[in-house]
Amino acid sequence: MTDSPAPLIPARSWAIIDSTLREGEQFARGNFKRDDKIEIARALDAFGVEFIEVTTPMVSQQTHDDIQKLTGLGLNSKFLTHVRCTMEDVQRAVDTGVHGLDLLFGTSSFLREFSHGKSIPQIITAAEKVIGWLRDHHPELQLRFSAEDTFRSEESDLMAVYRAVSDMGVHRVGLADTVGVATPRQVYALVREVRKVIHPECGIEFHGHNDTGCAVSNAYEAIEAGATHIDTTILGIGERNGITPLGGLLARMFTFDPQGLIDKYHLPMLPELDNMIARMVGLPVPWNNYLTGEFAYNHKAGMHLKAIYLNPGAYEVIPPELFGVGRSIQAVSKITGKHAIA
Amino acid sequence: MTDSPAPLIPARSWAIIDSTLREGEQFARGNFKRDDKIEIARALDAFGVEFIEVTTPMVSQQTHDDIQKLTGLGLNSKFLTHVRCTMEDVQRAVDTGVHGLDLLFGTSSFLREFSHGKSIPQIITAAEKVIGWLRDHHPELQLRFSAEDTFRSEESDLMAVYRAVSDMGVHRVGLADTVGVATPRQVYALVREVRKVIHPECGIEFHGHNDTGCAVSNAYEAIEAGATHIDTTILGIGERNGITPLGGLLARMFTFDPQGLIDKYHLPMLPELDNMIARMVGLPVPWNNYLTGEFAYNHKAGMHLKAIYLNPGAYEVIPPELFGVGRSIQAVSKITGKHAIA
Ligand SMILES: O=C(O)CCC(=O)C(=O)O
Ligand SMILES: O=C(O)CCC(=O)C(=O)O
Ligand SMILES: [Cu+2]
Ligand SMILES: [Cu+2]
Repeated sequence: MTDSPAPLIPARSWAIIDSTLREGEQFARGNFKRDDKIEIARALDAFGVEFIEVTTPMVSQQTHDDIQKLTGLGLNSKFLTHVRCTMEDVQRAVDTGVHGLDLLFGTSSFLREFSHGKSIPQIITAAEKVIGWLRDHHPELQLRFSAEDTFRSEESDLMAVYRAVSDMGVHRVGLADTVGVATPRQVYALVREVRKVIHPECGIEFHGHNDTGCAVSNAYEAIEAGATHIDTTILGIGERNGITPLGGLLARMFTFDPQGLIDKYHLPMLPELDNMIARMVGLPVPWNNYLTGEFAYNHKAGMHLKAIYLNPGAYEVIPPELFGVGRSIQAVSKITGKHAIA
Repeated sequence: MTDSPAPLIPARSWAIIDSTLREGEQFARGNFKRDDKIEIARALDAFGVEFIEVTTPMVSQQTHDDIQKLTGLGLNSKFLTHVRCTMEDVQRAVDTGVHGLDLLFGTSSFLREFSHGKSIPQIITAAEKVIGWLRDHHPELQLRFSAEDTFRSEESDLMAVYRAVSDMGVHRVGLADTVGVATPRQVYALVREVRKVIHPECGIEFHGHNDTGCAVSNAYEAIEAGATHIDTTILGIGERNGITPLGGLLARMFTFDPQGLIDKYHLPMLPELDNMIARMVGLPVPWNNYLTGEFAYNHKAGMHLKAIYLNPGAYEVIPPELFGVGRSIQAVSKITGKHAIA
């Protein structure tokens, strides 16, 4: 509302961790060959994303070597690899040339019971060993610790874990809405709580699945509450129906600091990125996709057309040309009827 | 989080106004013939939506007659028609057999300047005339008054308008995020404010576009704040990239009152509804669609598979079979690697 203006959220207060090369590999059709990976990484780098997350080297020797290849490209985007918080995994990851490790541990009762079977004190002890070893032997690596299935974990467990890993010196803690169940106000509230128990210089990352339609808005509310890093993938590809899409996040954040976004990213490349991934996974860009979907800027209702001609801002909140896309005005259609522009 | 459980939101505290036959007609490919309209209305009725909104009879004699045809079908869902708040429009609508009229007036400075050119006092005076006439001559009609482009309107203007129309006796006021710019916490806050200025028995409706990815979560936050009616369309079709999709809203609300949702709607019909609209608009169900998208229940990562076998709830928040869809477990894929189920 214009009389209590939305708080300006500076685009430089948050960074993108694009996980197309990790979460995106967990998409049904995400099977990227080395050349695909290089193409994706170069495109993300040209677009300007700050971080690129890649699949754990534990998958195979090939995956391990692919990461070395990627980190050797000399890109500006920083590479992170996503590993379980175990000695075996991190020792395999440290020679891949990455800038940092994204450590993951399940903290919900679901995952503690049906996945790894550990208690919260055992999780903290395990984290201590791994993080301690990394801090001693690889102080150059940026470390993130994420509590998988954060939003189905006990809040007291989470606070204990986040406080502990922050004390161990991780650079970032992660909140992961693994099953896509969190609500925007819940994300906002939890990020505020986490902020209180971690060190001031410790970042906060949010990773959100879209099963219940909140992946973009939860990422936004995380930023509003003080999160510093957001996970995205191109077109949102990931497990099940995916996570926060790069384009969706940009559409959302654009309204708060247009110039900041324009300065940080090469926005007109977005259609190229979306089309690239669509081609690689063998699926179309969804027709209802943010910004680049076939009809994202199609105006039809007669009542709208006059205003759109006078000022596109009447029914558009983001100028399409900034994202390299066009507008279509469907002046001839049944519904236009007698309300069409005179 | 389990130690501060999400408030149970009873499914009977809110109703669906499906607008596939109005907002959906504003979709680029939404050109429904009379037979299509009848098929859509029957399907929505069989599914159990409480209200069906149809395009204004002002479009054409054909549209007017189509509404009469629809209201004559004897369905349980109640029909509403969407009209501008003018004498001409409402007089044309009163003999269509609808249960109520959804009146619309633009209150933002954008629309006041570039669309109808009226001031707030002029809007209230115009509303008074129309609503007064309807209350006198058609007391059987349920009336809703919506402020188009609510979230770019001055809060003081909105409160003046909502208070006035509530005093005039409308049954519902509408908040419309016409350009898809509202944020979840903003919607929540505004619905709470509106609640304070309208009569206790006056309902609150929310209509939200998805340009910035918040259409589902804004609808949810509206309900959490006390909204009683949510606008949806099948597959979310509408102007530009559309509004809150029926399936997305159901996925979101399911987690708060599963049994209530099961009692209220025939959930297993959802794939049929989504496929029907896809067929009529000549486009596929998007592969990332809520619940019914091709990969919505595809599990791939090796780390997930063991847990999914033991308990699908480990990585699923909604059992797919309740919505008539299946689960696929992609046990063979590169990324499964050595973490696959032993
Ligand atoms: O490492 C993370 O924060 C997220 C892991 C993941 O993909 C998830 O929990 O959904
Ligand atoms: O009547 C309403 O509340 C909504 C009208 C509409 O489609 C919009 O403003 O986006
Ligand atoms: Cu994930
Ligand atoms: Cu609309």
